Order: sequence, then structure tokens, then C-alpha cells
Amino acid sequence: MIKVGIVGATGYTGLELLRLLASHAEVEVSVVTSNAEQGKNLCDVFPGLNGHYTMTFEPHDSEALKQCQLVFFATPHATAMNYVPALLDAGCKVIDLSADFRLKDAKLWQQWYDVEHAAEGLLAEAVYGLPELNREAISNATLVANPGCYPTAVSLALIPALQNNLINTSGIIADAKSGVSGAGRKAAMATLHAEVSESFKAYSVGGHRHLPEIAQTLTVAANDKPVQLVFVPHLVPMNRGILATVYVEPLEEGNDWQQIYASYYDQEPFVELLPAGQYPETRNVRGTNMCQLALQVPPADSNRLVVLAAIDNLVKGAAGQAIQNMNLMFGFPETQSLRLPALVP
Amino acid sequence: MIKVGIVGATGYTGLELLRLLASHAEVEVSVVTSNAEQGKNLCDVFPGLNGHYTMTFEPHDSEALKQCQLVFFATPHATAMNYVPALLDAGCKVIDLSADFRLKDAKLWQQWYDVEHAAEGLLAEAVYGLPELNREAISNATLVANPGCYPTAVSLALIPALQNNLINTSGIIADAKSGVSGAGRKAAMATLHAEVSESFKAYSVGGHRHLPEIAQTLTVAANDKPVQLVFVPHLVPMNRGILATVYVEPLEEGNDWQQIYASYYDQEPFVELLPAGQYPETRNVRGTNMCQLALQVPPADSNRLVVLAAIDNLVKGAAGQAIQNMNLMFGFPETQSLRLPALVP
Amino acid sequence: MIKVGIVGATGYTGLELLRLLASHAEVEVSVVTSNAEQGKNLCDVFPGLNGHYTMTFEPHDSEALKQCQLVFFATPHATAMNYVPALLDAGCKVIDLSADFRLKDAKLWQQWYDVEHAAEGLLAEAVYGLPELNREAISNATLVANPGCYPTAVSLALIPALQNNLINTSGIIADAKSGVSGAGRKAAMATLHAEVSESFKAYSVGGHRHLPEIAQTLTVAANDKPVQLVFVPHLVPMNRGILATVYVEPLEEGNDWQQIYASYYDQEPFVELLPAGQYPETRNVRGTNMCQLALQVPPADSNRLVVLAAIDNLVKGAAGQAIQNMNLMFGFPETQSLRLPALVP
Amino acid sequence: MIKVGIVGATGYTGLELLRLLASHAEVEVSVVTSNAEQGKNLCDVFPGLNGHYTMTFEPHDSEALKQCQLVFFATPHATAMNYVPALLDAGCKVIDLSADFRLKDAKLWQQWYDVEHAAEGLLAEAVYGLPELNREAISNATLVANPGCYPTAVSLALIPALQNNLINTSGIIADAKSGVSGAGRKAAMATLHAEVSESFKAYSVGGHRHLPEIAQTLTVAANDKPVQLVFVPHLVPMNRGILATVYVEPLEEGNDWQQIYASYYDQEPFVELLPAGQYPETRNVRGTNMCQLALQVPPADSNRLVVLAAIDNLVKGAAGQAIQNMNLMFGFPETQSLRLPALVP
Repeated sequence: MIKVGIVGATGYTGLELLRLLASHAEVEVSVVTSNAEQGKNLCDVFPGLNGHYTMTFEPHDSEALKQCQLVFFATPHATAMNYVPALLDAGCKVIDLSADFRLKDAKLWQQWYDVEHAAEGLLAEAVYGLPELNREAISNATLVANPGCYPTAVSLALIPALQNNLINTSGIIADAKSGVSGAGRKAAMATLHAEVSESFKAYSVGGHRHLPEIAQTLTVAANDKPVQLVFVPHLVPMNRGILATVYVEPLEEGNDWQQIYASYYDQEPFVELLPAGQYPETRNVRGTNMCQLALQVPPADSNRLVVLAAIDNLVKGAAGQAIQNMNLMFGFPETQSLRLPALVP
Repeated sequence: MIKVGIVGATGYTGLELLRLLASHAEVEVSVVTSNAEQGKNLCDVFPGLNGHYTMTFEPHDSEALKQCQLVFFATPHATAMNYVPALLDAGCKVIDLSADFRLKDAKLWQQWYDVEHAAEGLLAEAVYGLPELNREAISNATLVANPGCYPTAVSLALIPALQNNLINTSGIIADAKSGVSGAGRKAAMATLHAEVSESFKAYSVGGHRHLPEIAQTLTVAANDKPVQLVFVPHLVPMNRGILATVYVEPLEEGNDWQQIYASYYDQEPFVELLPAGQYPETRNVRGTNMCQLALQVPPADSNRLVVLAAIDNLVKGAAGQAIQNMNLMFGFPETQSLRLPALVP
Repeated sequence: MIKVGIVGATGYTGLELLRLLASHAEVEVSVVTSNAEQGKNLCDVFPGLNGHYTMTFEPHDSEALKQCQLVFFATPHATAMNYVPALLDAGCKVIDLSADFRLKDAKLWQQWYDVEHAAEGLLAEAVYGLPELNREAISNATLVANPGCYPTAVSLALIPALQNNLINTSGIIADAKSGVSGAGRKAAMATLHAEVSESFKAYSVGGHRHLPEIAQTLTVAANDKPVQLVFVPHLVPMNRGILATVYVEPLEEGNDWQQIYASYYDQEPFVELLPAGQYPETRNVRGTNMCQLALQVPPADSNRLVVLAAIDNLVKGAAGQAIQNMNLMFGFPETQSLRLPALVP
Repeated sequence: MIKVGIVGATGYTGLELLRLLASHAEVEVSVVTSNAEQGKNLCDVFPGLNGHYTMTFEPHDSEALKQCQLVFFATPHATAMNYVPALLDAGCKVIDLSADFRLKDAKLWQQWYDVEHAAEGLLAEAVYGLPELNREAISNATLVANPGCYPTAVSLALIPALQNNLINTSGIIADAKSGVSGAGRKAAMATLHAEVSESFKAYSVGGHRHLPEIAQTLTVAANDKPVQLVFVPHLVPMNRGILATVYVEPLEEGNDWQQIYASYYDQEPFVELLPAGQYPETRNVRGTNMCQLALQVPPADSNRLVVLAAIDNLVKGAAGQAIQNMNLMFGFPETQSLRLPALVP
């Protein structure tokens, strides 16, 4: 049994950590923080957690966090970097669900996030928490940078093809669609129900912060060959879920893609290749840590491959993957508290 | 460990039984039936269950059901009544989630359901499966009639007031609102996305089948005083959830309603009275077996009481309550496999 | 052809005025104001208006408003009251879509809106803009207080019964449901898509600002008999539409309600009584200025009457009714620019 | 003033024709047909049309259609081909909103639509009703094949680039997303609210019927150069709207795409190129006949171009474009009854 803290527990990823950890037999959530709601009862803010927790919110700099073996950061970017060093010094392990430790290159980070990095020295040591790529390193990490939601979906769609050098590493198209919870839980006009519902749009077409993260991960997957990618995110009028539709150019025709992906992901507990002819729907992974994948050579262009990947952006794209990483870091069974059927409908 | 069968496992309540039973340590689901999908793999129909089940669908009259200690019926009305007698004879216990055994009066049933009852002789023996009213009888039952979704919400809103003879038993107004999954999973035009979404309506205003069921239950709750009720159901453009807004006339002013309800439901694991000034939202019970209640004396009319009750129509209003009943019938802990936080958002 | 100004044209009611006035042959919208967006092009903020307007936003205190024959206020409450006196002095007529001039009693207004009224002297002169009650007065008005969305629906549901002294004026229950655009277009957490979608709730159960407005209007309709009302508003996960389900107690049984309402609303261009057995759906009035009504004596309680009223909260509940009022004030045909079929689906 | 008939007026495109024609001063809709609803009052089926029409439904083979100058077919595919020849013989003009006359190659049609073509002889004469490509021919046509919804969006996204020979005609990726009304108004399980809402998926990934239609149109646009296209449609949990995200490879870098598209569509009343940096949202064309376009060279791959196109699938993608075609065929102003602002929200 470990003590765990959650910094920024009023957002959707913090809430999702609380939902999933409620049934984790090896974990006690002992501290939740929120600067805005400090002093309030957790369950008054989230009545859906009634009966599972009794804490009140503490401020982000609560000393109680230092008594935790593990602290999750579920804060907006540019927050964790200010608090993590002291916690590491105090002997805590840290999983940061925000973007602060995902990019290896501090300059690149600053360019995309418009602020100077406050803990540049930790970037090299931070392990990118995608178990399907870095399981071993995660197991030994003290600081894990939990991947972004889009990067998780796009990377899982491409890793087998890239690792096996089977596709052109330029001209990759990742057309990705996300539910609105990805935008976070904060007062904003652009994500009002009346602005989002009954509409569909692309956004950040001129450049999204997940682009350099995806490129970095795909380059690792491609055995350090540089990867050139067009990434267009879209907003779906729903709360949860990401579907990435990825278009690539195989280096040769005639590969048995179904076999190649099946054998790559065979042992993975949270990646599932659908049978040929079945395609993922985000609802089939809702509330779960699964990534469902499908492969299709398109009818009119046999020299293309379409890869479809569906995840729940708050679970495999955030809190679930963070718990998967925690399980690896602390030697718990990798699937503990994460073996849930989807909530359908 | 008991063996369990689910007749009609392709509907939303059958699917929800499968979701919730996946984590029940005392239960093995060994048979699922569907006349339409027989022979197909369960998880090809419901890929959200991947990794949890491996069965194929059998027909409703599968002999394998007789090897089960318990059979759930998750079929449309007028189906279970044809199969249940043989299963009871074979020694199975039965929980029927449909309407077939809910009304004690066969004539009344026939009047509302437009078909002759095929197992009238079982109506007396069937126990109405509302644990908050009938816990003891359920524990000893072999045949449980699982309550309807609206009746569950409306009854839980009124039982404490009626049992204590505190309100006028005529002039009760139950204005209830349900998500669309209550209409079932079948080809239909009225429940298409494009017919339901971005719209709101009342339906069955001239008479809904849950009216006699509610009246029967409230009469029991009112110590057999006849109850006169106006019940208007509405369709909400969402998948899950019921909110019932119930208006009653107290016999006297000045009751401490908060205290009266709190003490009545004190020991109930799945009924929760919110603190004064908090009101239920269906999302806070989504995916859970909870009923959240609130009480309000309205500002301009102190001789009225408003009771708000929220449930997930597929859980406390169907599959979850059925499992709660199963737990009682087989001596398992009443909350087993039902202690889940809500899925928010 | 008159010149018209819209103060607060960045909210949903302002936008709706612009949509509906685009096809009004007698009106030129010459000024739109927004303090937040001043200087910006209207159509850059609302690309759905492209091709219909070319103005830029001016500040609320723009002198250009004084050149208008009519100024609409589509601002939050407690704004119009500061600007209207000067515009009236300048000879403009004013239709205020906010709450500032709706209540006749300044003390009551202050009690519900938590601010002192800045133009108390105008309350007596302001005409409550419900044409079905006040057509004549509206025609001669210089200042019209455009009704709230809930009050419009609830009042239209009850006026014929009250005017004819046919129902008990106490014990009226108005259970009303609104889409989320009623909450306005402003950064807020409570109306985020991820907070509203797939959920349903009551709100302001302890007291909503529309309660005194409804009571005032119903009292007028009841020939000044005081009306006692329970009013519970609910939030529907959709953008547009209000359905009010109103429960009343007839003074006598056996009225031909269908006939009573039909004859009352016979000449009304924007109130439509559905044939017996048909019930309103909000989508059938979406984008239109219609109120659709239905009447039902409930099956188990013949001494009640249920009245259902559906409107589009942004049209008959706001901008459409304002234009109807404008048409009356300026002698244009009452239905001009308002004869639109519903947008379904 | 012409008399117009609508065959199949109970579907969403038929309903949309009725909505838009209600305000067309040159048109009287004199016949509406439905085999399923014949004899019923149009406005009992669609109460949102109340006050605009008074007809009852006649059968598809009604002789009254022959008195019409123009007949619209808003039927599923493989229906119009059986009725159109007799109507043409009777002197009617015809606009078919279904797929029956869109493909020039009858064999290809039969291959994709799984039925033999019953009026093959008319394929050569039928004019593909995309005014931006075929305005002149449409003006002189007696039989117009109204384009599919996806083909309209994808074609408008690509015509300027293809006509000017500026892009590689192979390797085009069209990732398209549609609201659910595109699936039609008929009893079906796959398009139930509870199956569609809160989920996102690709469908027909192995081949969609609009693929050969798009390829045929793009080939015409490309001055008969063959076009090779990957087309993946997706289902958005909303009622109306299509967004197509199209990825192409320019033959040279450095084109001023904004200028190229602006000059191509300069005179088009229903195509609007957004300013650089603005992107389309489907809500901004909801209920309108507009196609909004945006262009973006992606940040990490300057040798690609992303084109975004948004339409309302029921208007520019069906009924609105059909009316635009009617206006051309009968010499009415091209925009008549089609100049509507978007319904937002």
C-alpha cells in the first residue's frame, strides 16, 4: 500500500485518477490539491465520488505531499515544473500528466509553450511514459512524463510500422478527432455546450503543441530516422474519446499488416488489434485504458495504409496510462484497477 | 461461485449486466442468449467487452440455462413469462428485468400491455425487487420482478414521506425525465439520433405503462392507502439517466424533511440524500447503482415539497438493481461489484 | 425603413436578432455594440452571418445609437437600465431583452437581482412585451420590457385558463426545461459541454429570478387574483428550446379545454394549439417564433390538467418576440421576418 | 410561378426542400409523396411545417406529379430510376437528389449499388448538378443528378487546385466527417441516439459509394487527368454538417493558395473562402447553402496543403443545392430562397 497525492485534482484528469484509483487495492490517495478549491470537501465538488473519498482540498504546495511515495500532477502546463524538483528531493516519485517533461529539447518546449522552462535539468532524466515503447525505463523511473492524448493515439497507430521500417517516414498524415474534455475543466467560451454541440471543426491547424511531441516519439519509434508529419486535430461534440485516422505510404506493397501489428502488440494488455473489417468506435473504449486499432488498405489506392486508433483521452490518453505507469514503477500488476469493460452506451 | 445466464443479452440492460458482472468475484456468466444474434461471438457484437468474455450467443430456449443457478431476463415484455416457468421448475432462480411480473393484478397488466399474461399463477409469488422496500422478501425469493426505471426513481423519492403518513396521497405530481437508452436497443425511427438530439418532449402523456406500477408500489409504501398520481415522462437528449421531480403536498407544514429522509435511508448503501442546497445531476450517478435525492420546500409555496431523485436508468433502474437483488438472494455482500464511482464527464 | 441598433450583439440573443433581422425588409441594422469586441468586424466574430452584414462593433455608449429609431438591448441584466434613459431622451424607442424593466416593483427587482435599480422611474411606463396579453399597449409603447424565456412559455400555457377563471390560482406547478443557450454566451464552467452534455439536472430550485416575473404576469392574466406557483427550472443537454410542463387544478371537471384554448388563441399568429393527442417537441419550433401547446387531462386524476408549451428560448423566448414587438410598435405586419418553418433535424 | 412535386417527402432531404421552398416566391409545392404515409397530412408528420403547407401525402406514382413543371426525387437510391422516364416523357423536368443518375458508367453504378440500373439510357443526358463546375449545362438541363453530400464538400475543396493543374492527382487524402442525418430518416439500429451519441467512428473504410462519384467529379475538374483518392468517411455525433479535411501534395512549393482559391470562387454566391487563419465550423453553415473553405500549409511539411471545407449536408449537400439547380434551370435568381444566415447556436 502506497500513499499517493494528486496535484490539481479539480480537472478532468485529476477526477479520472480519483475514479480509477478508488478500486486500487495497493493505493491510498491521501492528498488532493487545488489552489482554487482549497478547504472544500472533495465530494462536494464531485458528488459522483461520494462514498469513496473524504478528503478536503489542500493547496498545491502542501507539505503533506512529501509524505507520499508518488505524486501525480494533473495541472495545466508550466505548473508541475515549479513543484516537481522539491518533491523529488523529498524522495517522492512523480508522474506528470501535463506537458512539462515530455519534450527532451527545452528550446523546442519553450517555443511551443511560450514560457521558459523552470526545471530544464530534469528533462533528460524524465522517462516518456508510453509503456508500449518504454516499459523497462518506466519501471525504473522516478519522474515519468505521461504522454499527451493525441500523441498516445497516433504513436500506437504507427509504432509497429515504424519499428519495422515498413513505411515512408515523410508524408505521414494524422487526422485526429477529440472529445471536448481534452480542453480541460475551466471557464472558457470556446468549449461551452452551445459553442461545441451540433458542430464540428478543425483547430490549431496552423500548429498544435502535440506536434513536436508526436514527432519526437515517432522518431524514437523509427529507430531515430526523422519523421515528417502533418497533424490536424479536430473537435468532436462529445465529452470523451479520441479517434486518430492515420494515412501512411508503405515502402512496399503486399505486407500482411494485420499480422505485423498483431505480433507486435500480442503481449500488450492495453492495445487491441481488431479483426480485419472491424473498425474502432470511441465508445467501445469509453472509461477503459484500451487502445483499439484497425488497419485498412484503401480500395482505390493500394499503395496507402490507413490506421485507425481509438482511445479514451482521459484514460489511456491521461489518467489510465498514468496508473499503468505507476503500476510499473511500483511493481504492481500492470493492469491493476484498469481492467474495466467500456461504459456503453 | 454461481453460474448465471442472461436471456436477451443484446439489449442495453443485458449489456449493462455483462459490464457489471465482469468484476463480480462470485459469479460466472455462462450463458448469453439472443435469438437474432445466435451463433455470433458476444464480443464481436459488443467490442467494449473484449477481454472479459468469450461466449457466443445461444437461443432463448437454450437448455444450458437450466444449469444456471440464476437466470436474468433482459428481454422486452411478454417474453419472460413464456420461459420462466420451465426454468423455475428446473430449479433456477430468476430475476426478470422486464415488466412481466411487476403487477400483482393480471387484468391490469393485460390492460396496459395489450396481451394475455402467460404465467398469471406466478404473479403472487414474484417479489418486487426494490430492496429499500422489500429487502427481506427478496432475500428469500426465487422469482424477482425487477422494478422499472421510472418506478425506482419515483418510489425512492416518496417512500419515507408515505411510510410516515406525512403527505397527501392524492395530487402527487411526478414529472420524470429519462435518457433515450430507456427505449431499448432496436431499430426504430423515433429514437434515431436525428430525431432525439437537440430536442425535448413529453411522451405517453395520455398514459404510460409505468403508471400502474408506480401506483402499486406507492400504495404499498403508504401502508395500503390508495395513491393518486399524475405521471408525465419526458425524453432527454442523452443516453443514460433519469431525473424525477416530484411535487407533493405535506399534511402539515414545518416538518424537518432533511432529517426524516436521512433517518429513513441512513443504512441504505445505494440511496444518498444530498446536503440541503445541493441538487442531483444524472451524471453524478452515471454508471453507478446510486440514487441521489434532494428535498426543497419551494420559495413561494411553503405548503409544497419538491423531491428530486436521480438514478442511472440502466443501473439502479435496471441491471444494477438486478445485481443488488442477486446479491441478496444468494447471500453475497449487497454491494458486491456495485461500488463504482460515477463516470464524469 | 427604420434604423435599428443592437446593444450587446455578441450574445446569443443579439446574434439571433441579427439572424432574424437579416430578412426584414423594413429594417436596417446600423449599429451593433460590444464593449469587449469593439473595433472587430461583426462577421469575424460570427462567420455564420457572412454576406449579410458588414459593420464593426462599437462601444455600448456609441453616439450612433441615437440616430436609430429603435434600440434593442441584448445585454445581461443591470446594463440597460444605465443606458436607456438617455436613448429615450434622444427620441429612440427601446426594446430591452434583459430583465431590467420587467418587474413593476423596484424593491422586488432589487431583492431578486441584488443591485439597486438605476431607472426606477421608467418601470411604470415600460410595457411588458407579451403580445398575447398586451398587444394594444405594445403598439403604443416607447419602452418595451421583453419577457423572459420561461415566463413566455409558462404564461402562454396558462393565460386562457386564468383569464376565464377556470383553475385554482394556487398550487400551480410549472416544471420547466431549457436548453443551455439560456445561460448566455460567456466564459463559465457550469455550462461547458463536458459539464452539461449527457446529464440532466434541476437548478435554482431554491428560487429562480423568473419566478416573480411569472407570478406578476399570471396575476394580470388572472384578472388580478394573486397566483401561487411552484416553479422548478431544469437544464437540458441541448442548445435551444424550452418545454414547460404545467400542472393545474381545474375548478370544475368536464371543461372542453381544447375548445377553450383554441378559441382564445384563434387569431394569434404565433401560438398554435396542437390537435388532441399530439404533443409539442422543442425541435418543431426550433428557429421559429411559434409556441406550440397541448392539453391533457391525465389518466389517473381527472381533476388535474396538464398543459405543455414549447418555444425556442432564443426566438419566441427572446429575439423573435422582440421583433414581433418591434413590428407592433412600428406598424409593420406582425409576422414580418418571422414566418420561418422549423429547422428539423 | 411553377408547380413542383417532391417524391419521397418524409426523409430529411425532402423535409429540407419543404423548409427552403416555403419562402420561394416563384414556387408552389403542389404534390408531396410517400408510399408509407400516403393519405396523412404533411403537417401531422412534420409539425414544424405548420402554417406553411396543407397537403396530404400521395403515393409515388401519383398522376398529379405530371402536372408539375419540376419534380424533385428525395428517395433512397434505386427508386428514382423507375419513375423518372415517365415524368420526363410527360414534360416534367427532374432533379434527383439520390444517387441514381450521378455516375456516367452504368457498370460502375451497378457494382457500387448492387442493383441493375433501370434507366441506363438517361445517364448520358443527366447533368451533374454542381453549379460551380457545370452551371451552364445545368441551366439547359431537363434531368439533373444532384451531387452527394461528401462529393460536394470534397469537390469544392479541390476544384481550383485541380483545374489549374497545381497538385499531384494521386495520393489525395479526403478525411471527411458527417452528421448523422446523412444516413436518412428510417428505422435503424446503427443510427439510434444511444448508438451514435458520445461516440465517433470511421465507417465504410473498405469502400464508400461516394468514392467513385468523387473520383469522377475530380477527374472532370482535373481536365480529365485520372485522380487517385483515399476517402474515409466518419460519423460525428451531431445531426447536420460535413467537414472535409483534404490533404494534397502541390506540384511546386510557394503558391499563393489563398489568392488562387479566392480568384476561382470570386463570383460564386455559395462558396466562401475564409481569411487566412480562420477555419470553418459546420455550425457556421447550418441551415445555409454555403460552403466555407480554408487553406493551410502545415507547419512541419511545407510540401503539403490542407484544404478544409464545411457544408450543411442537407442544404449545400442536398436540398439547397437542388434548389440552386432549380433556380438555374428555370431562370430564377440563383440565390432565391437560399439567402439565409446560419442558425447559431
